[in-house]
Amino acid sequence: MHSNAIRLVGFDGDDTLWRSQDYFDEAQLEFERIVGAYVDLADARVHERLYEFEAGNLALFGYGVKGMALSMIEAAVEITAARIIARDVHRIVQLGKGLLQHPVELLPGIGEAVAAIAADYDVVLITKGDLFHQEAKVRQSGLSELFRRIEIVSEKDPPTYARVLEEFDLAAAQFVMIGNSLRSDIAPVLQLGGWGVHVPYHTTWGHENEAQVADDASRLRVVADAAALPAAIADIAAVLE
Amino acid sequence: MHSNAIRLVGFDGDDTLWRSQDYFDEAQLEFERIVGAYVDLADARVHERLYEFEAGNLALFGYGVKGMALSMIEAAVEITAARIIARDVHRIVQLGKGLLQHPVELLPGIGEAVAAIAADYDVVLITKGDLFHQEAKVRQSGLSELFRRIEIVSEKDPPTYARVLEEFDLAAAQFVMIGNSLRSDIAPVLQLGGWGVHVPYHTTWGHENEAQVADDASRLRVVADAAALPAAIADIAAVLE
Repeated sequence: MHSNAIRLVGFDGDDTLWRSQDYFDEAQLEFERIVGAYVDLADARVHERLYEFEAGNLALFGYGVKGMALSMIEAAVEITAARIIARDVHRIVQLGKGLLQHPVELLPGIGEAVAAIAADYDVVLITKGDLFHQEAKVRQSGLSELFRRIEIVSEKDPPTYARVLEEFDLAAAQFVMIGNSLRSDIAPVLQLGGWGVHVPYHTTWGHENEAQVADDASRLRVVADAAALPAAIADIAAVLE
Repeated sequence: MHSNAIRLVGFDGDDTLWRSQDYFDEAQLEFERIVGAYVDLADARVHERLYEFEAGNLALFGYGVKGMALSMIEAAVEITAARIIARDVHRIVQLGKGLLQHPVELLPGIGEAVAAIAADYDVVLITKGDLFHQEAKVRQSGLSELFRRIEIVSEKDPPTYARVLEEFDLAAAQFVMIGNSLRSDIAPVLQLGGWGVHVPYHTTWGHENEAQVADDASRLRVVADAAALPAAIADIAAVLE
């Protein structure tokens, strides 16, 4: 085996293994229905202002549902000029609790794709966000046995990936990361010298699209769905032979 | 070295390395001031009802400040029969943000105690709660370089400790855990066959005291403060010689 052969394949969780952003989008609509009883959504720039609160609180809350719910409450107080009533605040808390309780729904074909790749390579799950919620999702996914390790991290940046690679004693060129987010799954791994397989999801949180990746990056593959993942990994392996 | 000699010493974070419950207690008082404008604190059993909401949400939120803030908001809506105004809800959100931003304050003598023990043993930090907040506290503590590994876990129960021991390829009898919580730091480790050093803190969340540990457990030591920790570890090591 060539020393630069692929030794480890990483999978993202949210919107790569299982549906996630759809539920956040639904929660956003429900938030707009609640706040829409007090203000005109367009005039009040409700969508944009909620995003400003979420982005502004990210350094304090990190990712995840509980921080989102707190940001929504802050935004609702501000946007309604403190007119929002307690029952509507409670609806926002309930909306967060609903997201945390949502059953895990695997994306089509992903179980088979992970199993196929795990037959040839060590695979790890590298997922970002709330530890407690992500652990619950991993348990419910039924896929945890396929992964050699499950890393729940607070931020998916080059230092985080470098730490994972160090724990496995691997060079970046021996690692492929598979995911839907250019910002979190692809750009940092390419930057380290690793490989990326981008599987775009039909909806992506604005924050996760804020990344620069050259379209012609030679260590990047883009596939349409999970069924195409094993072939993409095989294609990368063939380049390295 | 005897095969059952101590090989690894674990430290808890909150209220073992740094102050934590004091700030939660202050937040509880501030919550009571806010809600006390609407109801009589004693008649409405505010303290008990907040704890009921927190305990009831634990399986969904896990530990940490963000879940606490959401539980406080739910409890405030319920306790005030939805009379709480938006500005007061916002004060509860701010109270949570204040906790997340609080500077890390090491407990007296703990830096020296960790350094002394780390000179003789591998030490790990095993801390529970919100990943993002705990990482921030570890960074700010200035102690992270002393630890061979930092494990942020969602629950400190026997399976969690068993997993850590497995990663280090150790038997429970080769491990000592140091912490302030009988429930989270001591009972599960004793149950596995390991050693515990209990350093009681002057204030403890009710939940963390819910544990049964025999006072005369031969693998348990109790010390009054951090300065006594190196001697407690030496005492355990002497038993095993």
